[in-house]
Order: sequence, then structure tokens, then C-alpha cells
Amino acid sequence: MSPERLKALLDEVAAGATSADEALDRLRDLPFADLGHTSIDHHRELRTGLPEAVYGAGKSAEQLVEILERIRDAHHRAMATRVSRRKARLVGESLPGVRYDPVSRLLLLGDSADRRAGPGVVVACAGTSDLRVAEEAAQTLEFLGHRVERLTDVGVAGVHRLLDKLPVLRDAEVVICVAGMEGALASVIGGLVAAPVIGVPTSVGYGVSKGGETALHAMLSSCASGVAVVNIDNGFGAATVAHAILRGANA
Amino acid sequence: MSPERLKALLDEVAAGATSADEALDRLRDLPFADLGHTSIDHHRELRTGLPEAVYGAGKSAEQLVEILERIRDAHHRAMATRVSRRKARLVGESLPGVRYDPVSRLLLLGDSADRRAGPGVVVACAGTSDLRVAEEAAQTLEFLGHRVERLTDVGVAGVHRLLDKLPVLRDAEVVICVAGMEGALASVIGGLVAAPVIGVPTSVGYGVSKGGETALHAMLSSCASGVAVVNIDNGFGAATVAHAILRGANA
Amino acid sequence: MSPERLKALLDEVAAGATSADEALDRLRDLPFADLGHTSIDHHRELRTGLPEAVYGAGKSAEQLVEILERIRDAHHRAMATRVSRRKARLVGESLPGVRYDPVSRLLLLGDSADRRAGPGVVVACAGTSDLRVAEEAAQTLEFLGHRVERLTDVGVAGVHRLLDKLPVLRDAEVVICVAGMEGALASVIGGLVAAPVIGVPTSVGYGVSKGGETALHAMLSSCASGVAVVNIDNGFGAATVAHAILRGANA
Amino acid sequence: MSPERLKALLDEVAAGATSADEALDRLRDLPFADLGHTSIDHHRELRTGLPEAVYGAGKSAEQLVEILERIRDAHHRAMATRVSRRKARLVGESLPGVRYDPVSRLLLLGDSADRRAGPGVVVACAGTSDLRVAEEAAQTLEFLGHRVERLTDVGVAGVHRLLDKLPVLRDAEVVICVAGMEGALASVIGGLVAAPVIGVPTSVGYGVSKGGETALHAMLSSCASGVAVVNIDNGFGAATVAHAILRGANA
Amino acid sequence: MSPERLKALLDEVAAGATSADEALDRLRDLPFADLGHTSIDHHRELRTGLPEAVYGAGKSAEQLVEILERIRDAHHRAMATRVSRRKARLVGESLPGVRYDPVSRLLLLGDSADRRAGPGVVVACAGTSDLRVAEEAAQTLEFLGHRVERLTDVGVAGVHRLLDKLPVLRDAEVVICVAGMEGALASVIGGLVAAPVIGVPTSVGYGVSKGGETALHAMLSSCASGVAVVNIDNGFGAATVAHAILRGANA
Amino acid sequence: MSPERLKALLDEVAAGATSADEALDRLRDLPFADLGHTSIDHHRELRTGLPEAVYGAGKSAEQLVEILERIRDAHHRAMATRVSRRKARLVGESLPGVRYDPVSRLLLLGDSADRRAGPGVVVACAGTSDLRVAEEAAQTLEFLGHRVERLTDVGVAGVHRLLDKLPVLRDAEVVICVAGMEGALASVIGGLVAAPVIGVPTSVGYGVSKGGETALHAMLSSCASGVAVVNIDNGFGAATVAHAILRGANA
Amino acid sequence: MSPERLKALLDEVAAGATSADEALDRLRDLPFADLGHTSIDHHRELRTGLPEAVYGAGKSAEQLVEILERIRDAHHRAMATRVSRRKARLVGESLPGVRYDPVSRLLLLGDSADRRAGPGVVVACAGTSDLRVAEEAAQTLEFLGHRVERLTDVGVAGVHRLLDKLPVLRDAEVVICVAGMEGALASVIGGLVAAPVIGVPTSVGYGVSKGGETALHAMLSSCASGVAVVNIDNGFGAATVAHAILRGANA
Amino acid sequence: MSPERLKALLDEVAAGATSADEALDRLRDLPFADLGHTSIDHHRELRTGLPEAVYGAGKSAEQLVEILERIRDAHHRAMATRVSRRKARLVGESLPGVRYDPVSRLLLLGDSADRRAGPGVVVACAGTSDLRVAEEAAQTLEFLGHRVERLTDVGVAGVHRLLDKLPVLRDAEVVICVAGMEGALASVIGGLVAAPVIGVPTSVGYGVSKGGETALHAMLSSCASGVAVVNIDNGFGAATVAHAILRGANA
Repeated sequence: MSPERLKALLDEVAAGATSADEALDRLRDLPFADLGHTSIDHHRELRTGLPEAVYGAGKSAEQLVEILERIRDAHHRAMATRVSRRKARLVGESLPGVRYDPVSRLLLLGDSADRRAGPGVVVACAGTSDLRVAEEAAQTLEFLGHRVERLTDVGVAGVHRLLDKLPVLRDAEVVICVAGMEGALASVIGGLVAAPVIGVPTSVGYGVSKGGETALHAMLSSCASGVAVVNIDNGFGAATVAHAILRGANA
Repeated sequence: MSPERLKALLDEVAAGATSADEALDRLRDLPFADLGHTSIDHHRELRTGLPEAVYGAGKSAEQLVEILERIRDAHHRAMATRVSRRKARLVGESLPGVRYDPVSRLLLLGDSADRRAGPGVVVACAGTSDLRVAEEAAQTLEFLGHRVERLTDVGVAGVHRLLDKLPVLRDAEVVICVAGMEGALASVIGGLVAAPVIGVPTSVGYGVSKGGETALHAMLSSCASGVAVVNIDNGFGAATVAHAILRGANA
Repeated sequence: MSPERLKALLDEVAAGATSADEALDRLRDLPFADLGHTSIDHHRELRTGLPEAVYGAGKSAEQLVEILERIRDAHHRAMATRVSRRKARLVGESLPGVRYDPVSRLLLLGDSADRRAGPGVVVACAGTSDLRVAEEAAQTLEFLGHRVERLTDVGVAGVHRLLDKLPVLRDAEVVICVAGMEGALASVIGGLVAAPVIGVPTSVGYGVSKGGETALHAMLSSCASGVAVVNIDNGFGAATVAHAILRGANA
Repeated sequence: MSPERLKALLDEVAAGATSADEALDRLRDLPFADLGHTSIDHHRELRTGLPEAVYGAGKSAEQLVEILERIRDAHHRAMATRVSRRKARLVGESLPGVRYDPVSRLLLLGDSADRRAGPGVVVACAGTSDLRVAEEAAQTLEFLGHRVERLTDVGVAGVHRLLDKLPVLRDAEVVICVAGMEGALASVIGGLVAAPVIGVPTSVGYGVSKGGETALHAMLSSCASGVAVVNIDNGFGAATVAHAILRGANA
Repeated sequence: MSPERLKALLDEVAAGATSADEALDRLRDLPFADLGHTSIDHHRELRTGLPEAVYGAGKSAEQLVEILERIRDAHHRAMATRVSRRKARLVGESLPGVRYDPVSRLLLLGDSADRRAGPGVVVACAGTSDLRVAEEAAQTLEFLGHRVERLTDVGVAGVHRLLDKLPVLRDAEVVICVAGMEGALASVIGGLVAAPVIGVPTSVGYGVSKGGETALHAMLSSCASGVAVVNIDNGFGAATVAHAILRGANA
Repeated sequence: MSPERLKALLDEVAAGATSADEALDRLRDLPFADLGHTSIDHHRELRTGLPEAVYGAGKSAEQLVEILERIRDAHHRAMATRVSRRKARLVGESLPGVRYDPVSRLLLLGDSADRRAGPGVVVACAGTSDLRVAEEAAQTLEFLGHRVERLTDVGVAGVHRLLDKLPVLRDAEVVICVAGMEGALASVIGGLVAAPVIGVPTSVGYGVSKGGETALHAMLSSCASGVAVVNIDNGFGAATVAHAILRGANA
Repeated sequence: MSPERLKALLDEVAAGATSADEALDRLRDLPFADLGHTSIDHHRELRTGLPEAVYGAGKSAEQLVEILERIRDAHHRAMATRVSRRKARLVGESLPGVRYDPVSRLLLLGDSADRRAGPGVVVACAGTSDLRVAEEAAQTLEFLGHRVERLTDVGVAGVHRLLDKLPVLRDAEVVICVAGMEGALASVIGGLVAAPVIGVPTSVGYGVSKGGETALHAMLSSCASGVAVVNIDNGFGAATVAHAILRGANA
Repeated sequence: MSPERLKALLDEVAAGATSADEALDRLRDLPFADLGHTSIDHHRELRTGLPEAVYGAGKSAEQLVEILERIRDAHHRAMATRVSRRKARLVGESLPGVRYDPVSRLLLLGDSADRRAGPGVVVACAGTSDLRVAEEAAQTLEFLGHRVERLTDVGVAGVHRLLDKLPVLRDAEVVICVAGMEGALASVIGGLVAAPVIGVPTSVGYGVSKGGETALHAMLSSCASGVAVVNIDNGFGAATVAHAILRGANA
């Protein structure tokens, strides 16, 4: 029941057109969460500035077009993750303003949010094979209005390359660590910086890397403090965590 | 906001003591799910006739006494699962009316529900080692007012013992199959009866039995139709599924 | 030995054409389960109204045509699951009356069973990616004569959308919950309704979703009562459980 | 060094044609296990009547031709497992006498061994999807000279179909049970027959069937006695076990 | 329905005291598998000479006494596996003739079966830590009347110790290989002998030995032919397979 | 090389007592990271206000006393996690000022940090069995100067209890969700609040709960945004992530 | 800060152009590991003679060309692993001197290192299916200047073939064992030779071979001493271990 | 048969004292591997200077006394691993010269081997909880005559502590890295040193550390070169690999 309809009902009660008992009955019957629904959704929108992102992997180009348009109309901007190059081209034919990046596989519609002040997020990754996931995180953040500094190829087997970047790392408000194989990057960075560190294990590797499971478990077992983790290859998820943190920092 | 308070507010609106706008504001501010809370809880109680069962494994005797009393006062009866013999004795000293069964490890307080009509549930198990789990299911059902027929030692490696019991199996409204090791009992029974079959894998076995995982996966892979499964050793859970089914059958 | 042949033998004994000893020898020699065979099969047919469904994944179009025809001739209707679009087209060329749905991948032959009274089954799913499995459940049930209400996109991360549908959920005789990823839908619904809940984990997701294993384990670990589970992506299996429950409810 | 050549050398020493020192040198130089080697290989050949079977999955058609010819020349017959239809055609172009069966994917060269007396082996399988593995076992055994009785579609969810075949099962010297999904067939048959039962789990199924792991573990957890198991889908391996058993039975 | 009662019924028909139709009705009603039950059980006893062994792990001393006596009375001998020293002492106080071996943890009642002719079974194990499982196999076989040759400490890391025993190995009718850790013994022996090889993985080891899973998987992956496997630590199961093989060899 | 010693060296160069070349040599020889060491440690201390917490599980009471004293002397406060009641008593005898809480198993030495402004952290848990982990998180945060609001028993199977607490949840700067079994709490809360959500899976449960693995995987698979996760039962780790976030928010 | 710039700064201090305090400030600000960076890199290059090998699996032909040229220019030689035939051809078009081997899938640029003295490394493998991995190890070692002896087809199921090669094995400085399936080769060789043994499990096999996991775990569980292991299919990794050992042996 | 005895036999044949046939018989009868056996054992002893170490976990004090004495008599020294404090005391009562270390749980008998020249082995570990495993490695090496340098508490979350020790690490001939939790130490050290690195994962940790599996998989996935790994907690095994490497380096 929308506030408008609720107001109308109360007006009827005030005017004597509906008795209190009748109103109670109608309120009792109203779908449980109707009021809440509105408030939650309203809250959702305020909260994120982020239209629900569409998980593009299991959807057709037609479905993507329809959903993205609907979200864009409601929220001014829309995005989809894990969109293949071919599907992106098909979507582009129907949705002229859409932008696609073949590395991150993100499909973006509408302008990026206004650039937020502050040093923002460092997205560090261990190797070029992790770039797809790192870019999913970085470009999502930029679309949401955050400054992103990229550190590429700072794997732990060449720890000096990482140490060279300490000033950049220590300036960050949040660090996102993207790493496959043994995923030790999150531990090492977690020991070097004060900011919260979000680990993103990737499915890069073979054999006991187990599609990212080893990196995931290694990051979770980290002996460093201040490290939390998202699902394997979930660059988008890490971006939403960083976004939630930075909104609080600016509130 | 309870119906009483809601009615009072509407009365004020009807009487002109509160304007429609003020009422709207107060309704808008009321904690989101307040209305729902009541209705859900009410529904819960109607629904189950089953006081929330207490999972006794991680609680002290003192905690059990306090929680069981509180539930009994609200619902006339209360029960706890996975209670050790020692803990049950301690509870019994503070809660005189409590009943304990060392096989099922159930602690029961208050009278059983009235006996429901109909043939009820068959609880079949493959071996004496599965009895603890089978009795947890059977005695929970009896406490809730259901008729239970027990079939013991009807393992698939002696399929004739099972076939001897066909008339009993086919008369049941629900069959609960309790089996460890290879858990094939659910498949064989599922092929013989018309009633829904609830499989309860048990942790009986060693080596590749893997604490019940093999029986669980075997039951889920069953090529028989009409078979669904609950967690390993979860006799209580199977009883709640059977209870939910039989309530519908009698409604 | 069919009843007819058994009657003939007994007639011979009664007529003195066969001695009791000879009759005993012939009965002793008859294949063990012959009598049982008939009775079982008869029972099976009565029981399900459901011709054995053919698992279409590993069979050729030719095999499907042959098996479906044979089942249809015996039972008036026949169905196959997991049939690809291409295979369905080939089957359709040989079996003109066959119907195919590309979402559920079901192949149906013969008329649906007569519509059963009562509110029937709610099939709820968490996202559009789960639709294939949800439709396999829903269309199987409709083919068997059950009323089905579909709830789409009621994931737990937007719990208000689920609460909006409470009246529908609470009216159901059985609820089938189809969910991938973290599979929490079954727990939340299990806490809201009185009817038995059948969880169907799906293989939707990536990383630690592990092809549905996480949803499966989460559903089995559910702290809600009245929830049982079938194999990953097994919409058909959930439908057979619901069917077994509803037959009992109507008996 | 064969006994004949060793005897010849010793004769030369006895005759003075070779000095003891020269003989020692020649014996000293012979590769460590040479004596053993011969005896092992000789033994191997006596033992199996089975030329080493070639695992065809990872080899090119050219490699297969070369290896099969070499084995055939030494042993009169040769076989390869897991050969694709395309590869078999290529091999056939170079090796005219070769026979290929697309179900078992076996490639056979040379005549089958002479038919052994006795009732032989029953190869039972639970469904048509298991036929590839069952035929790999059955045709390997026939190539080695054994009688094979096939039982198809005797799954445990229709236990009466299995019981109908009891006389055939009980006559067998060895029973090979081929089953995927929950793999309960081995348990049920193990409880019905006196002969050794070799279980072959298959990768048929989905979800928690886990590529045959559930059937494997269920068979190993079997509460029936006299059951041993080979690797998933390893019909050939089961045949070699049956062959080893039957050679002993006839010795 | 026992043969006696069936005969009586047929006599009544022959005598005209019961009509053919009445007899048909009574036969139609007789419990499905009654006839079969007898024949199966009879067959079971003939088949094994092995009273059902009692799995002692989950039973009390009182239960063991009662079950062993019942089996002994029916079959002249009885045995229980996995019986602790303490439980064995308690059983011994009530059942004077019982024999207990603390290594194999077997409890035996009644005389061993008569010694069968022939070379019998070699039970080989890789280390002294595997002795418990090896003795469970060996003593079960001796109780059933088989000759057993024990080979201890023939691990693959000292392959010469194994080769020294070749004559013994090659003389065996069946070889049981008991090995933990990497379980390679079954592969090496499988390449050396003609007899069937039964692998018994043991839970000896630590870390990636995973309670015997690595040995199990290694044995199943064996590239040697003629090797089948039983559950981890299941010495008794291996003995029942060997027993089934040897009965056939002697039939 | 400490800043003091470095300054002394530079003074010598300025004074001509050491040549630039000699100074270069001494700098070149200084252990690689000496300078860095200091700066890192300094940074560490500034950053956390958190003395390195001692993981108490594998240490003796004597070791704990020694380490805690050393840390306290350097940092004014010290803490140890996972300390048993018995060990805590022994430590208390040697370290009089130490405080111990038997629920969280934390051992605290020195005063808590000054209370930080702002609404702080909500620590929500699904059941009383999760309290140990929840308290480890909550008390660590309080020791570090943060305000903590506890929500107990807000499991998803009674979603209304959770919705009742929405105002508290939405006011939080960070939400820590502690949940075992199916771990769905993180998903549901993640869909309701704007703040970052840190999930802590617990080892509460049995069967497929797998010591917390199911809750962990379910949380990582969450379809809600803004959710990151720490290791199973790692309440302390979650507190360090929240601490890192809040320091940034206040900077 | 390079030594040159550091020297310049010290010169300024000596000359009085910069005060000691100013110099201290500038040193304090210099990026933490700048000095170390140089020394580490220098060390790296000295150490290996091995340009960082490029993991070719996830890179485009263009990326490979660019990276290989850069490495070659710095180190005279460069290599990439896991390069497909198609990608290699594309690289070859842009980088004329490049050499490609389709078995090992290595792409080599520049001359091999000078041949090192000594017997070098034996690379032994169990079957022709393991050749790809074995050649990756062997050709990497040859490129680095080591002598390599190849032993092919020395599986444990034909242990005599292995024993025939004892003199070769015992002469080796390092033995690399490449084996899939049950991976027992490492144990058997570990018991026969004095040199360190590097096990390389391969993903060859099916069913419980689990993509190499069984071979990996079996090698790690080896009861032989002197055996260490690298990741599944990681022939290159084994070569780098052997290289590190041999550099020490020659130092 | 030793070469001497073989020569003597051939001399007899040459002298006519033994006929060729008699010689053949004696050669034919000699145990298959006799020649090899001697040479292997001889080789073993030469090779290791290491009496076979006894795995003490599954043996009684009496068994340990007997085995250790037998080995000591043959090899001058003997050792057992994983001996509990209680068992060590019992052994010490019967074997006065025995030495026991409660941290490494090693039991040593006889003098250590002479100290080998050279810098020897660095044993580095990440935390005090890893000390037991690190000491098992270190003390085994010292017993075998190697110099050992211990680095304690050099975890990757405080990477500067590790960098401080670079000169020590770079001087080592072999580095043994002992680490639990995320096991990243091996990767970081592997990137810093030229020597071969042997990783020993430990079972230290909880939750996803999985008893050392995560550390194991992380080490195997290491992107650093020159790293090989042994079983979880297998400090002794790492020592035998280092020993094998150093013997080669000194040969």
C-alpha cells in the first residue's frame, strides 16, 4: 500500500466515510510488507547510487537490453557484469549509448557518478592474468565515482616490486588485492597498510590452484589483520564492499 | 504496532483527535515489520503445534531448564534434541516433569499432542546402529500426535527382509528412511511405495562413508521418484517434514 | 506367473488333472518374484499417474522416440527431461503430437492429467537464472494435473519482495524453492509457511558456489523446520515429491 | 637372458670355449633385472592371454596403429580402449583387420581367445546410460574367451526387475555390477549371490553424483559381503579382475 | 508362505475342500516375498559358510553376547569385528568359549571351518602399522577354512624386499594387499602376479594421506590389471571377497 | 639503522669526520630493510592502536605471560585470543591486572582505548550457539574503543525478528554477521543495510555444515552487495576489519 | 634512490651545501625499498641465468611477443610455457628466431646456456601420456644448460622395466619423476637412488585420478625419503628446482 | 649372489667340478633379486648415512626399543620420529644412551654424524606454533652432520622481519620453509634466494586452514621458482630432501 493510498484511507476515516473498524480490517489485510517495501527500496536507492548490477552471464542480449533500459530509466545509470564481446555488440545495436570494455567485460549505461574526493581505492594485482578481475573492480568503482589507483604485477615472489609501491598503498582508503595461485598478496599487503584490505581470489592457475579455491583459503587464513575476502573472481563484489566503506567514510 | 494500538490510532482519527496526516506520519515511522511480527508468530504457532525444538548440543543444563520452561509456558509442551544422559539428569532435577529417552536423546516436557487418525508414518532403518537417529524421528512424531510404525534392520543387502514388509510400507502416509553406509534403502523403498519418502542419511560407517556424506549423496542421486532428503543424522528434521505433510493431508 | 496362469493351474488341481505335488513343484520353480512383479507394476501405475520419465540427456533422438511411444501406449502419456532443442526437433519429426518447451527442456506426449482441486504448489525461485530448473518442476506438476503458482525473483537479498508474496506462499499445499548461489531462500520460506518445503539447489553461480553444492549444503543445514531437499538442478525430482505429497493429501 | 641362452653360456664354459672370467663379465654386464625381466614377461604372457591393452584416450591414430601392430605380432591379438569413432576409422584405414564397436569404444585386433567352459560372467547394469561401460567390460571378456550374460536395466528403484533375474545371477561365476547415480546395485546383488561381485561405478548422473564418486563410495560402503570395486567407468579393469578370478577357477 | 503350508493348501484344492478361486485369493494375498525369503536365506547359508559377521563397533557387550549366541546356534560359528579389548573381556565372561585377538580385534565363537586344500591367500602389507587390518583379513580367512600366507613389511620404497617374495606371491590363488600412505603396493604386486589382487587401503599416515583416501584412490587408479579394492581398513571385506573367489575355484 | 644513528652519520659527514664515500659504503652495507623496519613498525603502531594480538591456542601459560608483558610494556595494552579458562587462571596468577571473559575466551591487559564517537558496529548473530564468536568480535572492538550494539538470535528462519531490528541495523557504520549452519544471515542483512557487512561463518552445526564450510561458502556466494567475509570462527579478524574501516571513516 | 643519487646527496652534505638535517629528511622520505630493489634484482639475475619464464596460457600472441622481446633484450634468452600451436605460429611470424616444440609447448628465444658438466638430471615418466609434462621439464633444463637423460614408460606396474634402468637412475644428480594415475613411481625410485627426487604428478587418468590430485597426494605420502613434489603438470617448476640444486652442487 | 660367489661357481664349471646343468639349476633357484638386493641395501647405506628412521607414532615402547637397537647395531646410529614424552621415557629406561627432545619429539641413539663443511641449511618458520615441525627438520639435519641456521617468526604479514634476514637466507645451500595458515612464506623466500627451497606446510590454523591443506596447496601453487614441497608437518621428510641435495653438492 503506497503512502498515497494509505493517506487516502486515513482521510476517509477522518471524514467519517470509513469507520475505524473497517480501516483496521483493510490494514490488517494489506499485504504484509507493503509499507516496508517502499521504504526499503527507497533506502536501497539512496544507499548505493548503484543500480542493481545485472549478472550478464546467463542472460540473452534481448533480456539484457530490456533490463538495462528499465534500470537506467529508474536510476539514470545501469551496468551489467560478465558480458561476452558478442553479446555486448548485440546489446549495443539496440542500446546506442552503452559502453563496453572487453577486459573487464562490463557493460555500462549512463554517466559515471560524480567524482568523489579523497585518495580512493588501490586495486593491486599479482599478474597480468588477473587483470580481468582487477578491471571489473576498478571500472565498477570509477563508474560509482571513486578514484582508483591501479598496481599491476606486484606478486609476492618479487616482494621488492611491492615495497616500491608502499607510498601509494599507504595512501589508499581501501586496498583491493586481486590474486590467484597462492593468493599471498593479501597477507603481505595486510601487514603493510592501515586501510581495510579486500581480497579477491582469482581462478588463475592450474592443478592445486583448484579454480581459485587455494587463493581463497589462503587469503582467509591470512595471519595479517584487517583483511576480508569476497568470492573467487568477484571483482564487482569487492567494488561494492569498497563503495560501502567509502560512503561511510564520507558521510 | 499491535492491532489494539492500531485500532486506538484509527479511533483517534475517526474522532478528529488526530489528523490523517499525523496518523500517516506515525504509521510511516512505525517499525517496519511490527504488524508482520505478530501475524507471523501467530501463524507459526497455529502451524506447527510444535514448540520450537531446542538444539541441546551446545547448551548447559541451566540454559536448557530456562528455555524449556519458557517454551512450555507459552505452548503447553517443549522438547530438546541431542541431550546427553548426564545433562538430562541435571535438567530433570530442576524440571521434575521432564521425560528423557537415552536412545533418541530427546528431552520432552508436557503431554504429547492428541493422537491423529490415519496410518501415519513408517520409520525404516537399515541397522541397529541407525536406531538413535530413527528414534529421534519416531519419538518426535509421536510427541506431535502421529502414529509411527518402526521397521528395523531392513537393509538392502538382504532385500527379502524389506519385501516382507511391503504391506506395512505401502500403507504408510509418509516413509522416513534412515540409513548410513551406502544409503541405498531410500532408493529401493522409493521404488516400492506411493507415499513421499524422506531420506535421513546417518553418520554410521567408516572410511569412504565419510560421516554420512556418501549416504547423503547416494540418497540425493536416487533414481527413484518421490524421494527428498534432510541433513545427516537429522531425525528431528525428517519428523518436521513428515509433520508438515500430514497436517496438509488432514486439513 | 500371471493370475490367469495361476488360476489355470489351480483349476487343474481342483479337477484332479494335476496333483498337489506337481503343482507345488511348478510353483516352487516359478521365478521368485513373478507374482510380485505384476503387483508392483500395477501398483506403480496406480500410484503415480506418472509414466516413468525418461532422462533424455544421454539418449539419441531415435531412442527417445522409441521409448516415449512405448510408454505412451501403456500409460496414455509420456515425458522426457533434459532434452536439447535440436534433439527435440528430431523427435518431433517422428512423433508429431509431442510438445517441447525450450526453457524447461521437457518433452511431453499425450494430454496432461485432469486438473486436481486445491491451491496446489508454489514454485518460487531466486532469480531468472534459476528459471530452467523452476520450469522443469512447474511444468512436470502441471502435466500431472496440479495447479502451480510461480514466484520469480524472490531472492533473500531483497527480502521485502518475498514478504510481499506471503499470502500466496501461505496458501500453498507444497512450496518448491529453487535457488542457486547461497540457497538461503529455503530457510527463509521454511520459517514463513506451514506447508512442506522442497528445496532444489541449482548450479547457478561461480567460484565457491561449486556447481550448486553450496546451495545444497546450505539448504540441508537450514535451521528452519519442514524443509527437505532434492539433488542439484533436479526440478523434476522435486515435482515427484510434491506429487507424492498431494496424492496423499487427496486420498 | 633366457634360460636357453644362459644354458648355452654355461655349456661354453664347461667346454672351455669361454673362460669363467669372460662368462662373469657377460653376466655382470647384463642389466640388473634381466633374468627377472624375462621370467616376468613370460609369466605375464602366460598369465593373461591378454596383450597389454592400450589406453587409447591420449594417443594419436598413428601411435595406435604402431603399438597395436607390435603387440599383435608378439601376442596374436591386441586391443585398445576408449577409442573415438573418428580415431577408429583412421586406424582401420591402416590396419585392415581391426574391429571397432562404437558403444564400448573398443578396438580389437586378432581373433578372440577360445571360448572357455562354464557359465561365465554376468554383466548387470542399472540403466541404458551405463551401457558404454558395461559393454567395455563384456566385450573385453568375450575377446578373452569368456561367456558373458548381459542384464540391462536392473536398477534398484525397480527391485522386482532384478529379482526376476535371480536364477541368471546365481548361476554366474562372477558378477560385474555397472551402476552410476547412487550405485546401490552392487549392494543389492551382493546380498543375493554367492559369487564375487565386482562393482564398476559410472560417471552417469549430475549434481551430487559427482562424476561417479557417489556411486564409487556407495559401492565401497556396501554392507554386503563379497563386493570389490574398480575405478569409475573402468569396465576394462573389471573385466581383467573377472579374468584373473576365472583363470584361477579353471586352473 | 512355507512350502508346507503351500502344500497343505494345494491338498485342500485337490480334495475339493477349497475351491480354485478361494486358493487363488489366498495366494494373491500372501505376502509378496514370502516364498523368496526362505529360498534366499537358504541360499545365503549354503553360499558363505560364513555366519553374518557382526560389526562390533557400535554395539554393547550385552548386545554382542545375544547376537553371537543366536548366530552360533543357527550356524555353528559366529564372529564379530572391531571389538575393543574391554568389550571382548565382558563378552568372554558371558560366553566362555569365545576367542579374542587384540591385533585383529576379532571375536570368534565356534570352531574354524575345515581347512580347504590349495595354496590359498597371500596377505601382504607394507608396514607394521598396517598389521591390524592385515590380521583382520588373515584371521577371518583362517576362520573360514582358508590357508593364509602373511608377507609383512614389503613396502614399495624397498622394492627388493617385495621381489624376494615373488615365488610366494606367484603361488597364491588370491593376493590381498594392505597398504596405507601412497598405497602403491597394489600396483606393483598387480604387475607381478596372475592371481586377482584385492587392495585394502588403510588409514595409516598423516597430512595428505587423509585417513586412507589417498591410498584408496591410488589403488583404484592403478595402471596394473586384475586389481579391485574394498573400503578403507576393511580387512574383513577383503576376506569375504577372497572367500567368494575361492569357493568358485573349488566348486 | 635508527634515525638517531643515521643522523649521527650525517653529522660526521657534515663535520668532515667521515667522507661521503665512507658514508656511502656504510649505508650500502646496512641490512637491506633496516630503515624500512623502523618505519613499518612505527606505522603499524600508529595504524592500529592494536597491539599484535596473541593467538593463545598453541601457547603455554608461561609463554603467554611473557609475550603479553612485553607487548603491554611497548603498547600500554595487550590481548590474547582463544585462551582456555584453565590457562587464563594460570596467567592471572602471574599477571594480576589481566581480565578474562570465558565466553569470548579473550584475555585483556591494560585499559581499553578511549571510546570513539559515532554509532559504531552492530554485531548480529543467528543463535546462542554463535555467541562465543560474536563476543570475540564485540569485546575486541570495545577494547579498541568502539561502540558495539549486539543483536542476538536474529536467524533467517524467523525473518521478522530481524526486521524488527532494522533501525538498529541501518544506523550502524559496520555490521558484523556471525552465523553457522546455512549462514544466510549475511545475505539478508546485506540486502537491508547500506553499511559494509563483514560475515563471520561459525563452525556451529553438524553433517553438511562441515565445520563452518557451508556457512562460509554461502556467505561468499551471497547475491547481496557490500558483503565480505573472514575465516570460520574468526571473530577477532572481523573486528580488525571493522576497526580498519572505522579508522578511515574518522580520519 | 640509486647509489649515484645517494652519493650525490652525501657529497652535498660533505660540501656543506645540504645540512645533515635536510639530508636526513630526504633519506627518511625516500621510498622504502629503493636500495633493496636494485640489489634484489641484481641477485635474481645472477642467481638463475633463467629469465623469468612467461606463463603463456592466459596471454595473447601480441602480449607474448612484447614480453619475450623485453626479457630477451635484458637477459639474452627468454622462454614461455604452455603455448598453443596456433599461438606459437603467430608469435613466430613476429619474432623470427623463436623456437617452438609442440610436445612440451615451450617457446624458446635465444641460445641455450652453455652445457654444464656432470651427469645431470634423469627425467623419468610412467607412460607416453605423461610425455608433455616430462618434455616441459627436460627441455627447460636443456635450455638452462643441463644434461638430461630421458626414461620413458617405466611405470610401477612393470617394475622390471624400471629396475633395468637402475644404473642410469643411480648416476643422476637429480631425478625428476613424472607420473599420473597412482603416482607410485616417485616412491619406488625414491627407494632406489641417493639423489634428490622431484615428483611431478600429472593430470593423466580418469575417475578417482581427479586431475592429478591422487598422484600428488600419493607422492607426498611417499614412505621413501628424499622426495619432494611440485604442482600438478608443473614440469617447468620441477626443472627450476633441479636447476637450483645443480647450481649449488657446482658452486 | 655376490660376484665372488658367482665367479667361484663359474670356476667350478670351467674346472668340470660342476656341470653346466647343475650350475643352471643353482642360478635358476637363486632368489630373483638376490644380486640386486645386496647392491640396493649396500647402496642405501652408503647413500644416506641415515639409518632408516622409525615412524614412532604407531609403535609401542617395546617395539621402539627393539627396532632402534637393531638399527643402531647395523648403522652406529638410529632415530625415531613422533615419539611422545611418555613413550620416550619408557624407551629411555631400557635404552640408556637414547636422547629425546620434547619439541621435535625425536628420539636419537648414537652420535651425530661428523659436521659437514659449508653454510648448510636455513630452517625458517612463520610462527612459534610451527616450532615442532621446524625442530624436527633442524635436529634431523644436525644428527646427519649438517649445519643448521634457524629463523623463527618470519611470517609474511611482517615482511620486514624477513627482509632483515636476507643475508642469512642468501648464504644458505638449502632453505626449508615451515609455515601453516596461508603458507605464503615459501613464495616470498622463493623469490628472494637462489638456493632450492623446500616447503613444509604445517597443520597450524583453523577453519579453512584445513589441517595444513591450504598451506600445502598455496606452496604448490607458488609463483616463485625453485620451490618443492613435502607432506604436511613432515619436517623429517624435508630434512631427507635437504640431505640428499647436500650430499650431491659435496660429492
